[in-house]
Amino acid sequence: MADPVLPSSGALSPLGLDAVRLAPGFWGDRVALNREVTIAHCLDWMEREGWIGNFRGALPRRGREFSDSEIYKLLEAMAWADHPGFAELAQTVVQAQEGDGYLNTRWSGSRYVDLEWGHELYCYGHLIQAGVARLRAHGEDAFTEAVRKAADHVCRRFMDTTETCGHPELEMALVELYRATGAERYLELARRLLERRGLPALGPIPFGAAYFQDDLPVRQATALRGHAVRALYLACGAVDVAVESGDEELLKAVESQWERTVARRTHLTGGMGSRHADEAFGEDFELPPDRAYAETCAGIASIMLSHRLLLATGDVRYAELAERTLYNVLATGVALDGRSFFYSNPLQVRVPAQPSQEINLGHSGGLRSPWFAVSCCPSNIARTFASLGSYLAAADPSGLRIHHHTPAVIEGAGLRVAVETGYPWSGGVAVRMLADGHGRLSLRVPAWAEGATLGYGPAAPPQGPDAPAQGAGTSPQGAHAATDVAERTRVVREATPGYAAVEGEWREGDVVVLDLPMAPRWTFPDRRVDALRGSAAVERGPLVYCAESAAGEPSLTDLSARLTPPAERTGPSGVVELEIEAELTLPDTAGWPYTSRPETAGRPDTSRLETPPASGTRLRLVPYHRWGNAGPAAMRIWLPAAD
Amino acid sequence: MADPVLPSSGALSPLGLDAVRLAPGFWGDRVALNREVTIAHCLDWMEREGWIGNFRGALPRRGREFSDSEIYKLLEAMAWADHPGFAELAQTVVQAQEGDGYLNTRWSGSRYVDLEWGHELYCYGHLIQAGVARLRAHGEDAFTEAVRKAADHVCRRFMDTTETCGHPELEMALVELYRATGAERYLELARRLLERRGLPALGPIPFGAAYFQDDLPVRQATALRGHAVRALYLACGAVDVAVESGDEELLKAVESQWERTVARRTHLTGGMGSRHADEAFGEDFELPPDRAYAETCAGIASIMLSHRLLLATGDVRYAELAERTLYNVLATGVALDGRSFFYSNPLQVRVPAQPSQEINLGHSGGLRSPWFAVSCCPSNIARTFASLGSYLAAADPSGLRIHHHTPAVIEGAGLRVAVETGYPWSGGVAVRMLADGHGRLSLRVPAWAEGATLGYGPAAPPQGPDAPAQGAGTSPQGAHAATDVAERTRVVREATPGYAAVEGEWREGDVVVLDLPMAPRWTFPDRRVDALRGSAAVERGPLVYCAESAAGEPSLTDLSARLTPPAERTGPSGVVELEIEAELTLPDTAGWPYTSRPETAGRPDTSRLETPPASGTRLRLVPYHRWGNAGPAAMRIWLPAAD
Repeated sequence: MADPVLPSSGALSPLGLDAVRLAPGFWGDRVALNREVTIAHCLDWMEREGWIGNFRGALPRRGREFSDSEIYKLLEAMAWADHPGFAELAQTVVQAQEGDGYLNTRWSGSRYVDLEWGHELYCYGHLIQAGVARLRAHGEDAFTEAVRKAADHVCRRFMDTTETCGHPELEMALVELYRATGAERYLELARRLLERRGLPALGPIPFGAAYFQDDLPVRQATALRGHAVRALYLACGAVDVAVESGDEELLKAVESQWERTVARRTHLTGGMGSRHADEAFGEDFELPPDRAYAETCAGIASIMLSHRLLLATGDVRYAELAERTLYNVLATGVALDGRSFFYSNPLQVRVPAQPSQEINLGHSGGLRSPWFAVSCCPSNIARTFASLGSYLAAADPSGLRIHHHTPAVIEGAGLRVAVETGYPWSGGVAVRMLADGHGRLSLRVPAWAEGATLGYGPAAPPQGPDAPAQGAGTSPQGAHAATDVAERTRVVREATPGYAAVEGEWREGDVVVLDLPMAPRWTFPDRRVDALRGSAAVERGPLVYCAESAAGEPSLTDLSARLTPPAERTGPSGVVELEIEAELTLPDTAGWPYTSRPETAGRPDTSRLETPPASGTRLRLVPYHRWGNAGPAAMRIWLPAAD
Repeated sequence: MADPVLPSSGALSPLGLDAVRLAPGFWGDRVALNREVTIAHCLDWMEREGWIGNFRGALPRRGREFSDSEIYKLLEAMAWADHPGFAELAQTVVQAQEGDGYLNTRWSGSRYVDLEWGHELYCYGHLIQAGVARLRAHGEDAFTEAVRKAADHVCRRFMDTTETCGHPELEMALVELYRATGAERYLELARRLLERRGLPALGPIPFGAAYFQDDLPVRQATALRGHAVRALYLACGAVDVAVESGDEELLKAVESQWERTVARRTHLTGGMGSRHADEAFGEDFELPPDRAYAETCAGIASIMLSHRLLLATGDVRYAELAERTLYNVLATGVALDGRSFFYSNPLQVRVPAQPSQEINLGHSGGLRSPWFAVSCCPSNIARTFASLGSYLAAADPSGLRIHHHTPAVIEGAGLRVAVETGYPWSGGVAVRMLADGHGRLSLRVPAWAEGATLGYGPAAPPQGPDAPAQGAGTSPQGAHAATDVAERTRVVREATPGYAAVEGEWREGDVVVLDLPMAPRWTFPDRRVDALRGSAAVERGPLVYCAESAAGEPSLTDLSARLTPPAERTGPSGVVELEIEAELTLPDTAGWPYTSRPETAGRPDTSRLETPPASGTRLRLVPYHRWGNAGPAAMRIWLPAAD
């Protein structure tokens, strides 16, 4: 089955990419764009920057020490997407492999001399993930053979040492290779790499051992910490090892790390990472909107972790976070044209970025760039979209469970359904049976969707998929309670957050309609989040909204928002924008921004205004994932609240 | 005259280190500690780390590419302090010089191949400052000859190119060497280095050209930006060039950059720099307390800049910022034992730091460390304390002006006075004439000191220096108006912020008493500082206060402070601590720290407390500069205010 994560046990079973065929819609459009535009874009840039040439032995070698991994992530994307360029690129990689399986364009000749920063094992991790993708999507070939040879080299070299890599990634790749091949040595090395980390296994570095999670054994940690991508990849590997080893203690440890991290170290967007210097989480409640790092790759890694925990436990909270991160980090990380990217995804940009050159040498947020000096995000986006179908639905022992609502045809657990919806712009989700069948159909009801209803029965709703279903009555049953569809009458009942389930004998044409209330809502931070005190944000459905202001438009530096219900405005493409009332002022610079007279700190100093205050302005809010598509702008999600 | 900055013109004239002899007191104690402990501590560590050995040709070379500069800063400190170790260390440096004057232990053999990051010209800057110190404090010797030879090499090599250094510093050093020697080529090279910067003169780097102020010519910039120490050193050089060239436009440009930087990019402590990744200022109003970088060296550089602007203009605002930075950054940067240091000076530390090894490989705030992998701050502190006397007072055309009140004997402008005071713990400052004399005596009255009085006349006040003087009447004259002391009766009058001046014929024993009100005060941020919204801080006199909580004491994560007047408590050593009322709670982790129900965001969730809430707790506040002396602790200056 073609799927990046195929655990041998767990609460839920993946469906395989062939079983989830996306149709035009929010995600289907993006997956198509990825296949048609982004993969080729990445291939072009990797060639142009010489990173592919490194495999051909071009000198001098170009790119950073981990640039091989970008080619491997792209190969993984091409394998899932069945892209015609796979074979040629794979061949270029394979011919650079040494006789004993070693494969790295940077460290050949001085192998494994810098495990802290060399990224050699990290690169093997991505190579192996590409190999697993090829194996599952296509079958054995010269590339998968080379990947096994490389994995066997790594097993020989590292099975009986105390070493590990400064960047976790290999762990989950090895478990997946074990799942794909049945060779237990891969699982065993993954387990050993995981257990030796934190003893410690690496030398001292300026950022401290927590940077690469070598401060504590993984099962002793209470929260994710240090470099966010490293921490999340390591946690993915820990879940994979736990599931294949039946190690409940390890699984529980990662679950409680996830819980604390989500409660105290996660931005409203689902973005993770608050520090630029070491791309790290930061302390509890250290969640600055302006300097939020929230790397696109950390968002992807968080989706990967939540997906694994969801498969292992079936707990809806993992699907909740994944949805938030899909819509507000992954969808934000790539521009609408599929050719430019955010590396960092801050929640506030004070001053529009100034593009200086085509390649973004840095990572700061606010500028969509076609490529980066460290360009981990574009190829990570490419492989994630290429396998996105695997995240949307799963089979549980009773039937089909749909986590994320987007137009698609889904086949699994004996059911074959078409999902029709304008979600996330509108809240109606119609699931139509494409064949007779038997089993439970569970649809996720998001936590914010209080007042949702579920309609089901033989008749299609007359108003189309976006309108609530009409029915004979409502039932106040709990969300997880399954209702039998056998009565063959149309019923509408309350659907509380969690999974709303209907089960029974289905006939082709039967329709289940989930209706999610989509009114915009004001959201407030925990008061321990110092950086957000006195502010509020607007969410609508799964989308976080933001104010955006291009150069020349009024500054967002000094605004206060009235917390009245936002007005909606639907554009021609169905995109819903919002409008709120706010005051925008541009007071003059005082000599010193601190005062013993709070009455002057709390109000604009209108006596020295550069421009007159604009009272009662209507402020447009756009979905966060769409910001920055028209060029550099100032932006903010969290809006200071008028008293 | 022995003084690090001796402009040939300007509103004020420095007095020379011999003319300001510090007595025991807040600054006198620290200057003595620096001379007796800190200089030897730095010498020990530089030897131990091999940075001095590099000059002896020891292999492999040790330390970062700029480690030579640490030896030079220490030599500058030793020169000002007339330290007995100077000659030997200077000899070690001199014998490493090459025949044509080139001197650098890192780049010898591959000169000037990396001007962006090599720090070669930066190192010459510190070498030249050490040479000027030796020349002025001692006179010509083999070291000063070597310094001139190095400076001449640099002039030959760089006079007619378009190059400059990634780290400004050489500019101000060359101007001072011109002042000390009269050789105009040094001023000319400084001017050229300054003018070619921003054209641009350096290649692209990931942080962007603003990092090293190469984005704009110095006279076009509107605020200090990029790497804070680089920006401030460059501004110092610009003031020096402007003063020696009579370039009013350049001086005005730096003045307005200073003004905007102080109004929008400066922390309450006077600390500058908000970003760790590039040690940079950040945007206007980006002033996070927890991630404030506020490098000790940036504080020193800010004091250096304000000192130069004060000498050039006589404007009291420069002395104001210098005082704030002296008490809250410089005094914070070194521990009470003189042997450990803060590199970064954040305004909030959420979790006590965990010391792992003796040398701090990183820079994060919260841990006083004996040494750092990049150890620029200790030697910068050493040279600043060794020349601190030069910052305290100056001569203006009418007499003596005292900027900073601390026990000392000061001689200048025809007056010889003893300053007696317990400042900053108490607010009385007595200035006693040690000889008959003629001229104006001006004492700075800080901006916060509303209600201050100035007493003067022949009789010493009966209650000692810390009590307000008693007198026959008060006069409401403005602060800058000088009052004639000739009446020979004791007078007390109002002293408004600025400089309070008295002038006339003085007799030995005459006393002027400035009485500054020292009640603690609550301070509030400009509402555009998003990171501080809803918080307040306590200041008393020039000192910023903070709450401190060691491991095991109640967390400071979740407190709300009542904004009632703080209570004072004076310790045995005269240190004044404060006490306020606050609530400290430790609510349980909610699953997600954002909610649509503000009533739960605004209040503790007492239903799931880990420990019971502590209501109405008395919270101790200590002077910020004293925090962290008893080991790692949590700390915060800005306290969330109870409604």
